Amino acid sequence: MPDGHPVTGLDEVVHQRVRLGILAIAHEARRVEFGYLRTQLDLTAGNLSKHLSVLETAGLIDIEKGYEGKRGRTWITLTRDGTTALAEEIGRLKVLIARVETPAEET
Amino acid sequence: MPDGHPVTGLDEVVHQRVRLGILAIAHEARRVEFGYLRTQLDLTAGNLSKHLSVLETAGLIDIEKGYEGKRGRTWITLTRDGTTALAEEIGRLKVLIARVETPAEET
Repeated sequence: MPDGHPVTGLDEVVHQRVRLGILAIAHEARRVEFGYLRTQLDLTAGNLSKHLSVLETAGLIDIEKGYEGKRGRTWITLTRDGTTALAEEIGRLKVLIARVETPAEET
Repeated sequence: MPDGHPVTGLDEVVHQRVRLGILAIAHEARRVEFGYLRTQLDLTAGNLSKHLSVLETAGLIDIEKGYEGKRGRTWITLTRDGTTALAEEIGRLKVLIARVETPAEET
């Protein structure tokens, strides 16, 4: 896309607000529990599950179900592709920000 | 939202990939023509119109129809609220980027 704007390179799977949050938190925490994500992102369980499913289908996260004591828990980790995808998103956002912050030419 | 993640402060009207592109280009160009936006963002006319309509309804852009010679043209400009909304989005993305780039604590 030689002539396109930086946003044309953004992947909507990653850029979407909630999914970007999931990837960022999983990146910070390495392994993150469903309930923690839900609180941090202020989501219903159904809405969070929907976005996790999109990310899992794209191969960007692994979802693991288990127990903590007797309580069922769901853990989310970034895959290697997820780490790469987040880094690419961040790189493209930086290009976009730099363009927006370049003073416009007065014509 | 003292406990929320930075993405909880992002406005989906502004953050959505195509609309962020429209606002960024209108910011760079001050006044931008529909066909130029369409090329830069690699969109169909219908898809671009849909996103422009969301931004106009939110009061973030003005849409003006006129002529250039005999050809009908549609011009887009950022409103003051649009300029503010873009600046807020950029500010929040910077917070997000800074968090992602802070080395994770090894626990």
